[in-house]
Amino acid sequence: MNSKQYALGIDFGTNSVRAVIADVATGEEVATAVFNYPHGQQGILIDEKDPDLARQHPQDYLTGMQEVVYQAVRQAGEVSGFTPESIVGIGVDTTGSTPLPVDAEGIPLAFRPEFSENLNAMAWLWKDHTAHREAAEITARAAEQRPQYLAKCGGVYSSEWFWSKLLHCLRVAPEVGEAMYTWVEHVDWITGTLTGTDHPAKLKRCICAAGHKAMFHPTWGGYPDEAFLESLDPRLARIRKTLPDTACSIAETAGLLTPAWAEKLGLPAGIPVAMGAFDAHLGAVGSGIQPGTLVKIIGTSCCDMMVAPLTQDLPDIPGLCGIVPESILPGCHGLEAGQSAVGDIFNWFVSVMKPAGETHETLTQKAAALKPGESGLLALDWNNGNRTVLVDQRLTGLIVGTTLYTRPEEVYRALIEATAFGARVIMERFIEYDIQVDRVVNCGGISGKNSLLMQIYADVLNRPLEVTASSQTCAMGAAMAGAVAGGAHPDFASAARAMVRMDQRIYRPDPDAASVYNRIFGLYRRLHDAFGVRGCQAELYSVIKELLDIRDAARQGT
Amino acid sequence: MNSKQYALGIDFGTNSVRAVIADVATGEEVATAVFNYPHGQQGILIDEKDPDLARQHPQDYLTGMQEVVYQAVRQAGEVSGFTPESIVGIGVDTTGSTPLPVDAEGIPLAFRPEFSENLNAMAWLWKDHTAHREAAEITARAAEQRPQYLAKCGGVYSSEWFWSKLLHCLRVAPEVGEAMYTWVEHVDWITGTLTGTDHPAKLKRCICAAGHKAMFHPTWGGYPDEAFLESLDPRLARIRKTLPDTACSIAETAGLLTPAWAEKLGLPAGIPVAMGAFDAHLGAVGSGIQPGTLVKIIGTSCCDMMVAPLTQDLPDIPGLCGIVPESILPGCHGLEAGQSAVGDIFNWFVSVMKPAGETHETLTQKAAALKPGESGLLALDWNNGNRTVLVDQRLTGLIVGTTLYTRPEEVYRALIEATAFGARVIMERFIEYDIQVDRVVNCGGISGKNSLLMQIYADVLNRPLEVTASSQTCAMGAAMAGAVAGGAHPDFASAARAMVRMDQRIYRPDPDAASVYNRIFGLYRRLHDAFGVRGCQAELYSVIKELLDIRDAARQGT
Repeated sequence: MNSKQYALGIDFGTNSVRAVIADVATGEEVATAVFNYPHGQQGILIDEKDPDLARQHPQDYLTGMQEVVYQAVRQAGEVSGFTPESIVGIGVDTTGSTPLPVDAEGIPLAFRPEFSENLNAMAWLWKDHTAHREAAEITARAAEQRPQYLAKCGGVYSSEWFWSKLLHCLRVAPEVGEAMYTWVEHVDWITGTLTGTDHPAKLKRCICAAGHKAMFHPTWGGYPDEAFLESLDPRLARIRKTLPDTACSIAETAGLLTPAWAEKLGLPAGIPVAMGAFDAHLGAVGSGIQPGTLVKIIGTSCCDMMVAPLTQDLPDIPGLCGIVPESILPGCHGLEAGQSAVGDIFNWFVSVMKPAGETHETLTQKAAALKPGESGLLALDWNNGNRTVLVDQRLTGLIVGTTLYTRPEEVYRALIEATAFGARVIMERFIEYDIQVDRVVNCGGISGKNSLLMQIYADVLNRPLEVTASSQTCAMGAAMAGAVAGGAHPDFASAARAMVRMDQRIYRPDPDAASVYNRIFGLYRRLHDAFGVRGCQAELYSVIKELLDIRDAARQGT
Repeated sequence: MNSKQYALGIDFGTNSVRAVIADVATGEEVATAVFNYPHGQQGILIDEKDPDLARQHPQDYLTGMQEVVYQAVRQAGEVSGFTPESIVGIGVDTTGSTPLPVDAEGIPLAFRPEFSENLNAMAWLWKDHTAHREAAEITARAAEQRPQYLAKCGGVYSSEWFWSKLLHCLRVAPEVGEAMYTWVEHVDWITGTLTGTDHPAKLKRCICAAGHKAMFHPTWGGYPDEAFLESLDPRLARIRKTLPDTACSIAETAGLLTPAWAEKLGLPAGIPVAMGAFDAHLGAVGSGIQPGTLVKIIGTSCCDMMVAPLTQDLPDIPGLCGIVPESILPGCHGLEAGQSAVGDIFNWFVSVMKPAGETHETLTQKAAALKPGESGLLALDWNNGNRTVLVDQRLTGLIVGTTLYTRPEEVYRALIEATAFGARVIMERFIEYDIQVDRVVNCGGISGKNSLLMQIYADVLNRPLEVTASSQTCAMGAAMAGAVAGGAHPDFASAARAMVRMDQRIYRPDPDAASVYNRIFGLYRRLHDAFGVRGCQAELYSVIKELLDIRDAARQGT
């Protein structure tokens, strides 16, 4: 019994942090614990006057991590054969790009009294869109001077990313800029903290964050060159000097767990800690990603992850959030796409619009009774902008087709359908650029519990959809990284064979529904292009008419 | 005291009927009574499977009329000097086009046992849109064979109108078609019933309904010719033979109150009953309409009424619901335009979508605190189609600009603004065709009680807005017709001078708000044309962007 080995995965989400302890031989999750961030609204610091702003207090990360690991270890202690010493490795994932300013010692400015209430000294959460002007500026400058930088990140540099946020921070909060030594991704700050390598001179940066969000690429020797950054703002060039020349995949270790953190977590010191990655990337690992598999992590937002062998010569793919070597799986290019909001849109409708006192459960039940097309509604899933393929956070949602009889469940279903159409645009973009999709595997909170959404996705994508058995796929991926770091598996293929488990249920497309949705998708695409693509001369006159034709046919059952 | 004279106005609305008794010398309303139709949903018979269907049971009209007149007369009896004998005349208005099938004796088919549950044998309420295919067919046929018919009704024959509804009825319910002798407007059936002239051989038809809804015009000798109707359906030609060659303005009388109805109403027999008109037309009269005055009757829908001297040579105006001699005011062309839904849209939002348990009052209060443009939302007011200028019931609503933070009151305000923009399109159409608007007078339920809406309308139209003092302006207009029929006034100018009273409050445009709304109206117009005008090649890419710019400026108070 003492031969059992476990790995610990720590997953920092948008509203909470969770820990999973998994058996490295079977993937069995012997303990999980969750901690909701106490600051702000569900962990998010907001500004009533600026809907683009979303920050987090880094203290929540430390408090939460200590709490969930301590609890999970205690909980696992009830399992026969588990001891804290049987944890062979630790992996970490976080949201991103979620950078924060730190001082010359690597301490977050937010921990200083003078910055403790300064929103600009906090962690800039992935969904913060305050830097949209800077993103446009960086995009324009790169298009002019360094087109290669853009080619690797889908042609547009996003307001959600590292340099946009840094530039905006320097401009709106020069006092933060002065006090800041460097600008660190949440994930790197965590692995650095756990291993005592958080001093800027020692801090390793993961390729996932660097490559997808900070324009790091081996072909130009790492981060963007100083001259380019200097042309945007001299202070960027100064920060550039604090960054390392290399970035690390999850196959590398950040270091060993320090005695101080070992004590806080209830673990022995010296456990190897793998380099981190973003939640979606380790979610893809936890879903057993390999070439040909599209992994969709469906939660508040959605990430669409694919990999292709490093030996494959990939074209640049417009609209993708990046093509980065080894950002997901060692030995493969990592390709990331996604939707800026999925569950967040449904949550907005239920929690902010609060229609008729309905809940997700009652709306889902009523929406499930509707036929495809019968509401006559069509929505754009842009309430939080569009990440792929438009890479434009400065877009908003739309719904067309409302009558005097439109009911809340019809809107709810239309919002689900909108996210499904958005998902189809992404899948088609991969295929269009010769990244074949043989299999679609889904994970994340929504995939496991919302069978209406999954069936609509199957019908809209016209593909069978598999779902992972783990409800904590990102944390499981982090645990797999820990297992590899701890030597329990020689590589990720071995870890995946042993630890990834799939749900028995597969959502298969219904041909009739797929046919109706195929028609509505054509209308979605027209709205998408008319409102989202500069210079598109879309004729929209027939959109409403066709929706009504489809509605009438659906209601008459023809 | 015994010299006082009164007139009775009976106003049949969408959900209820009301009676007003007014002093012909002062316009003072000495009694009012309301009766809500008992059938269906708020008086409307619907079909769950067909959101286009809206019917009414004619029994509700008779029951309601008896009830409200009886009550009003009893109530007026408490006023010193009033006796039933002091009522000099009666006027009637109804919704329309709201036709119903009657037999050879003029009895509604709905009163026969075999048709008592048949929705097609009921009155086809104005907002019934089931006949949209027939409307398109009539429009196409007329465009080909009788373009002059279309020129007088805005270029498009509507699904809301007399012949479309009749043709649809004949097709979907041939049994109703067989049993029907003729097809009668609600208003004509009422004045016929009150005066014993409801037998088809005697029944007078009002120019208001005939001219605006049934293609009646003196230049081609009345109703459309039989050959034209025959080409659509031979049964239409048969019904055509049952229609008279003339149609009457409100300056004429339908006849005298019969003893039977006098007894039911608690009045003496023999009181003159004026020819009727639609509610909006008599609402315009009750608002003191004259050349240069735009009267807006703002309620569940909105009617925009103007008149021009018969001596003025008017062009055909595309999109208007008709230009008909004497349809509003004797001696003038009557011009009608309107919006298919105004209050109905807000009611839908509050009563069907039921956001966050809010009421009209709470939403209005919160919406009033918002600045123009600050929500970033823009809506199209087409939840019930578009009457003017697109004349297309087969259009639906749209809202763009939603985020994850969009609140119910922001949507509520955007819906109000949408109806204001729709109102501006109509006013601009009048002006574009040289019908000058010197003054805007508002009446109807919303104008008197919703100061937020009125201020937004003033800002969007950039005009001072006056409001009538009467809360029952349509019934007051009907009473004025009764007063003229009864000889208390020689003409409508005299009746208006004596009986029309204006509220002291005038809504004046705020220049800053008007400026922001002027910008948003440009975006509205682009959506309007892209979705509503066939062949329009609108570039929509910048619509969302500009809304966000406007929103950000509004929030920053710049």
